[in-house]
Amino acid sequence: MKLDINQIEQHNASLSEAHQRKFDFIANEIKDVEAVIEKLQAFQIAIPSWALGTGGTRFGRFNGPGEPSTLEQKIEDVGLLHALNKSSGAISLHIPWDIPTDAQKIKDLAASYDLTFDAVNSNTFQDQAGQEFSYKYGSLHHVDARVRKQAVDHNIEVIKHGEALGSKSLTVWLADGSSFPGQLNFREAFQNTLSSLQEIYAALPSDWKLFVEYKAFEPHFYSTTIADWGQSLLLASKLGDQAYTLVDLGHHLPNANIEQIVSLLLMEGKLGGFHFNDSKYADDDLTAGSIKPYQLFLIFNELIDGLDARGLDHATGLGWMIDASHNLKDPLVDLLQSVDAIKLAYAQALLVDRVSLKQAQQENNIIKAQEILQDAFRTDVRPIVAEARKRSGAAIDPVALFTALNVRGQLVQERGEKSVATGL
Amino acid sequence: MKLDINQIEQHNASLSEAHQRKFDFIANEIKDVEAVIEKLQAFQIAIPSWALGTGGTRFGRFNGPGEPSTLEQKIEDVGLLHALNKSSGAISLHIPWDIPTDAQKIKDLAASYDLTFDAVNSNTFQDQAGQEFSYKYGSLHHVDARVRKQAVDHNIEVIKHGEALGSKSLTVWLADGSSFPGQLNFREAFQNTLSSLQEIYAALPSDWKLFVEYKAFEPHFYSTTIADWGQSLLLASKLGDQAYTLVDLGHHLPNANIEQIVSLLLMEGKLGGFHFNDSKYADDDLTAGSIKPYQLFLIFNELIDGLDARGLDHATGLGWMIDASHNLKDPLVDLLQSVDAIKLAYAQALLVDRVSLKQAQQENNIIKAQEILQDAFRTDVRPIVAEARKRSGAAIDPVALFTALNVRGQLVQERGEKSVATGL
Amino acid sequence: MKLDINQIEQHNASLSEAHQRKFDFIANEIKDVEAVIEKLQAFQIAIPSWALGTGGTRFGRFNGPGEPSTLEQKIEDVGLLHALNKSSGAISLHIPWDIPTDAQKIKDLAASYDLTFDAVNSNTFQDQAGQEFSYKYGSLHHVDARVRKQAVDHNIEVIKHGEALGSKSLTVWLADGSSFPGQLNFREAFQNTLSSLQEIYAALPSDWKLFVEYKAFEPHFYSTTIADWGQSLLLASKLGDQAYTLVDLGHHLPNANIEQIVSLLLMEGKLGGFHFNDSKYADDDLTAGSIKPYQLFLIFNELIDGLDARGLDHATGLGWMIDASHNLKDPLVDLLQSVDAIKLAYAQALLVDRVSLKQAQQENNIIKAQEILQDAFRTDVRPIVAEARKRSGAAIDPVALFTALNVRGQLVQERGEKSVATGL
Amino acid sequence: MKLDINQIEQHNASLSEAHQRKFDFIANEIKDVEAVIEKLQAFQIAIPSWALGTGGTRFGRFNGPGEPSTLEQKIEDVGLLHALNKSSGAISLHIPWDIPTDAQKIKDLAASYDLTFDAVNSNTFQDQAGQEFSYKYGSLHHVDARVRKQAVDHNIEVIKHGEALGSKSLTVWLADGSSFPGQLNFREAFQNTLSSLQEIYAALPSDWKLFVEYKAFEPHFYSTTIADWGQSLLLASKLGDQAYTLVDLGHHLPNANIEQIVSLLLMEGKLGGFHFNDSKYADDDLTAGSIKPYQLFLIFNELIDGLDARGLDHATGLGWMIDASHNLKDPLVDLLQSVDAIKLAYAQALLVDRVSLKQAQQENNIIKAQEILQDAFRTDVRPIVAEARKRSGAAIDPVALFTALNVRGQLVQERGEKSVATGL
Repeated sequence: MKLDINQIEQHNASLSEAHQRKFDFIANEIKDVEAVIEKLQAFQIAIPSWALGTGGTRFGRFNGPGEPSTLEQKIEDVGLLHALNKSSGAISLHIPWDIPTDAQKIKDLAASYDLTFDAVNSNTFQDQAGQEFSYKYGSLHHVDARVRKQAVDHNIEVIKHGEALGSKSLTVWLADGSSFPGQLNFREAFQNTLSSLQEIYAALPSDWKLFVEYKAFEPHFYSTTIADWGQSLLLASKLGDQAYTLVDLGHHLPNANIEQIVSLLLMEGKLGGFHFNDSKYADDDLTAGSIKPYQLFLIFNELIDGLDARGLDHATGLGWMIDASHNLKDPLVDLLQSVDAIKLAYAQALLVDRVSLKQAQQENNIIKAQEILQDAFRTDVRPIVAEARKRSGAAIDPVALFTALNVRGQLVQERGEKSVATGL
Repeated sequence: MKLDINQIEQHNASLSEAHQRKFDFIANEIKDVEAVIEKLQAFQIAIPSWALGTGGTRFGRFNGPGEPSTLEQKIEDVGLLHALNKSSGAISLHIPWDIPTDAQKIKDLAASYDLTFDAVNSNTFQDQAGQEFSYKYGSLHHVDARVRKQAVDHNIEVIKHGEALGSKSLTVWLADGSSFPGQLNFREAFQNTLSSLQEIYAALPSDWKLFVEYKAFEPHFYSTTIADWGQSLLLASKLGDQAYTLVDLGHHLPNANIEQIVSLLLMEGKLGGFHFNDSKYADDDLTAGSIKPYQLFLIFNELIDGLDARGLDHATGLGWMIDASHNLKDPLVDLLQSVDAIKLAYAQALLVDRVSLKQAQQENNIIKAQEILQDAFRTDVRPIVAEARKRSGAAIDPVALFTALNVRGQLVQERGEKSVATGL
Repeated sequence: MKLDINQIEQHNASLSEAHQRKFDFIANEIKDVEAVIEKLQAFQIAIPSWALGTGGTRFGRFNGPGEPSTLEQKIEDVGLLHALNKSSGAISLHIPWDIPTDAQKIKDLAASYDLTFDAVNSNTFQDQAGQEFSYKYGSLHHVDARVRKQAVDHNIEVIKHGEALGSKSLTVWLADGSSFPGQLNFREAFQNTLSSLQEIYAALPSDWKLFVEYKAFEPHFYSTTIADWGQSLLLASKLGDQAYTLVDLGHHLPNANIEQIVSLLLMEGKLGGFHFNDSKYADDDLTAGSIKPYQLFLIFNELIDGLDARGLDHATGLGWMIDASHNLKDPLVDLLQSVDAIKLAYAQALLVDRVSLKQAQQENNIIKAQEILQDAFRTDVRPIVAEARKRSGAAIDPVALFTALNVRGQLVQERGEKSVATGL
Repeated sequence: MKLDINQIEQHNASLSEAHQRKFDFIANEIKDVEAVIEKLQAFQIAIPSWALGTGGTRFGRFNGPGEPSTLEQKIEDVGLLHALNKSSGAISLHIPWDIPTDAQKIKDLAASYDLTFDAVNSNTFQDQAGQEFSYKYGSLHHVDARVRKQAVDHNIEVIKHGEALGSKSLTVWLADGSSFPGQLNFREAFQNTLSSLQEIYAALPSDWKLFVEYKAFEPHFYSTTIADWGQSLLLASKLGDQAYTLVDLGHHLPNANIEQIVSLLLMEGKLGGFHFNDSKYADDDLTAGSIKPYQLFLIFNELIDGLDARGLDHATGLGWMIDASHNLKDPLVDLLQSVDAIKLAYAQALLVDRVSLKQAQQENNIIKAQEILQDAFRTDVRPIVAEARKRSGAAIDPVALFTALNVRGQLVQERGEKSVATGL
């Protein structure tokens, strides 16, 4: 299924008057709305292939209808998203769930939807059929060199798939850890991980980045071998200039100040990528902005500040990606909501009066500093984000259009009720 | 110091045009803005006397200048706040820090500022000079009946002070707990607390309420005798119809769903009062809405829903109070920011389309339910809250006016740099 | 596979000398070791049928070999455990994973292993093939009365299965909750849950207990409808005398004082059952005592104190059960380790000098109280627990014997490498 | 007051028979008890001067009687502790609370108690009378270079005091942080801190170490400028070889795996010192081992493993210190309990069979690894620690002797009921 540009235009026309009224108001209230819109239009958030199907918990999974069961259908899904919001112009593949049999054909298909390929993701947290060694006790950190080699080889293979598709980065999320005291020698696990990563790094094309993700806990419940930003940074620093830390919002201990971590990583030139989602308790993988929208804004505030300080382009300076699990909601609508929430937070952060903020900080005027941030956050920027979408040829209200067109219904008709996405 | 009505009018005049433009826009976008304004005008948040001075942490205290050092000056401070926002029309006293020597005179003074007396608060978490028994090992839960009696008597005395001033409720925040396993017999501590509270309850005037506050931890670090809403509800239920649970936002374990607790307490008819503040880690006592504004909105969403379901008036159905500690910011401005944030959250929650929400819930349409809540939260309601202030004769922008008038500077002139507020 | 009594005797004989030496020492050091041993022998911890297979996380599952794939094999597994430790004399079934086709045959089989049937567990957190309504949006709390009815009927069916087997209690763990603000009306969800539970309660045989389990979060990530002990107690109180709260160690928010909760529930006569496991982060479901052994001891300290205060028998006063997930370790050995850790904690708690503790508490002698608890905890009670096992005809060192006999290897031979347990 | 050696000998004689019986038993059960005893005798834990008085919380302080009010009395107190346990042979001073007027005299006094001077501690988290600039908004991270200079100068002065006394390290615990979003520019705060620390580092004698402590939160409640081990390590690495990270057990986010952090810091050659205490919720500063004794053991397990791997001496390889706050218990007894708990954990960790553990890890034999650790932890090592004390001329049971001799009573007689220790 492909959206017809007329459908979008019709939808926009129907909302045009109300939209224009709201946009005119806000455009008049803020400084340089055009610069904000331009940045919003350029800002793209990659969609991971595994987020297109219904996720589950360890207690079960309630399938949704019409899930994409092939890589082609996944690209079709992201194509639909991108047509609706013109902000999801890249797809992030997960190997082995999404091995392309004919890379060129897949590239062409993606191009037909105006999509590119973002970071490729390896998987050494599950065993695949026919695999020689099990990852039950880890992969890159494993005590057995043969297991490490198998995992390294897999990552190198993932890089090759990525090269064929035009990806420029590899994300390594390592589930390796332990669930019981004594299970691991922490130092040896770290050193094994480092040397495994060094082998992968050596295979990295010179224009690629290696993203080292960290996570506080789960699927292991005593220790994780790359558990926090400090450990990831240590590894990335030892690896070299092409290695970076990747931050996933849900991968922290309770109450962590993520915006500060982001700021320091940018300061060190070592923040590489970002996984958006939201959470209340653990790695809940909920819709971005659905639980702590102010935190999302504060993170964007630091991202902008840090990127600007390094002279990096907002859109391309980091790898931006959603990483969520859709257990209850329609995955496509959930992704539309996430992208929208991310762009709202970005727009609000763009409104922060940085000159005044700097001055307030220099004067320890905490009240003023708070007012500046809250002023930006409390501004209703929805018409600006909608305007950016409209100008890019997307829908003013993507969720409404998705619903009105019964997109899911059409996908079910094409794919059947019981199609199941590969992945978790 | 007392604000001159002309000062407020002048301030409002200077902001009038911009305010009107913004208000007209939003008034046109939402349904029945007048009903919202009316509710906002009626909604008053009590100011606790201890929040008027600079707070400290166990590591020290950095005094601010011009703090109120007498009860009269505290009333003057709240009078200033109320003049600026017309939303802080009550003061909550803390005994023994604020014992009035001449109750009628104090009442008259408060009335001259248009203030009433909210809940009175007892203090059995500190020893006072000349006190016979120490509260080092607790008060109402103490193993020694004489200590319990002393604490009960103190509470009864607090009630009497409250009666003289026109208060209608007593808040008991009990620090009683233990810092080491074995220190307490939990059941005995609970039973002692219950019987002590029963004695206090017996002394309660028939038109009073008793608020039983709970707190997860601090100042004790192993157990707290009234540690969660379940324990508070158990006590309040055993005490009788005049006893209620009081919820303080900062008194929970990490990640607690406070809005659900609030909802259930209202369902049981046992939610009595509410202490506003904000926190990231523990009982941080920060400015309301400064860390988790969406949570504050969600709580108001439940409060409104629950109050409406019981046919209770929003303004009077519960006791509303700020409870914060101002370690870094000017306490008066901090309070202005808190009250503003509370009213913004309340206004947003009033915008929730409850009919549609109910319908979405009945259909398990989670996407729609989320959109309804986010739609309300993302609305910029600042002009509505400002309009409510303006109509009540308060300042459109209280913080700006406070700054412009150099209120603190004048207070310093009147009171001196080194005046120190009684309290923590 | 069934253990031959000779195998155990041979094992015990080989360890006899070392064991006797250690036991003689400790028997001489403590008061009335015989009373402790007697209680240890009587104390049985039920094994849940789902814990006999390898568990998984949402990121995957690494199967172990020789898992029980039928109810008969599960009983065989528990029989092996019980033969090894004489402390696992009951099995807790989970419907529909363990529906007995011929109850009498199953009962006889269990009896042949000296096993009885503990609480039966219903499952409304997953959909079963052929089920009319989905539990995707909940079961007992569902907005749709037909879904609630289906879930109620299932629970009643579970009771019937339990009756046929001689169970005397039903455990309801309700996953019902929400992952997004707005998804649920909390009050309605609670009321629906209550009325569903009332229907189940009405079908409860008069000599049965209904255990209402609570859990802070997971599989839902915004709210859980029975989220804490307060909510469970509220429901159990409204249901009636046969309804109780069930505490699972892993089902709390970070840092909760579980021993205090246990104590208060016992005080209220509403603690019904207990699920043992251990955790560092969330509901990690690790081996009991593997992370926080002192907490386990402190909980037993309260359990003993509270049971004694009510004159309840330790062994039968509450329902004792393990609830863990074995992702990495051999489930049977993990269960042996759990049972051992539980009995060690119980034994240590039995050593607490309650008269001195009471006196220290009355004198606020915190140092003494701490010393009394630590004195018990620091005592090496392993020889006492081993002696209790030996006297009951079990192995002095069950894990060692399990390994020496290559029990798992034999099970693999009988069942095959790839047998998979039903369940999660 | 000074203990008479006869008092100790008498005490030991009275306990001798029971002690010998227990010691003989355990000495016979474990390998090479003599090596363990030797290590225990060498292991000294420094006592911070501020821990000798009663601590408080922000809600108040309940003074204890007979507190040391001069530096001389503090040394006397540590002298008493050391006489009782021969494990507290060093004192850690805090400037400006403990400025020695005559360093040589103080040194001689300490020497008369067989005490040396451990790390000196600076204080820039409070304002001192007469100080030119306030630390309300921070010190080493302050936006104003003059404030930073004042704080740097203070640290350099602290070093000078330390040199005069024979200290060899400076501990910088920096409270600097922020309580509100926007208050700080995180990067600037970090850079200011770095450059301030560089100035201090430049003044460091060549045989000194600089310990950079971190803390997750408190006294600031939004961000802390050195908030976690990653930030501390980054600073220590940029500073140079004499700079190290200092770990305080209570300074982490909930559920942090501290033993892993310790292990990695040792691996990097950057773990410098250790502050012992215990906590359940936050920086509770409770008696070491009173809440999570198994965690303490696991940390020691990593410390030993890491120190051995680097060929460092256990006793001198790191700076060992207690950092606790005694709000309820007699500080001296609390310290005796802490030191005892630390040595028990150390002794248990020394019992770990490292060869078998290594082998179990290489085989992913998790069950075995767990058994090895639990075997060590479950061993009752109290007689070994007591024997080490006895051989060093200390008391077999220091707490009992402290109580029997009524040490506190004698101190009260000497110092008066109302003496108050300087400090928090």
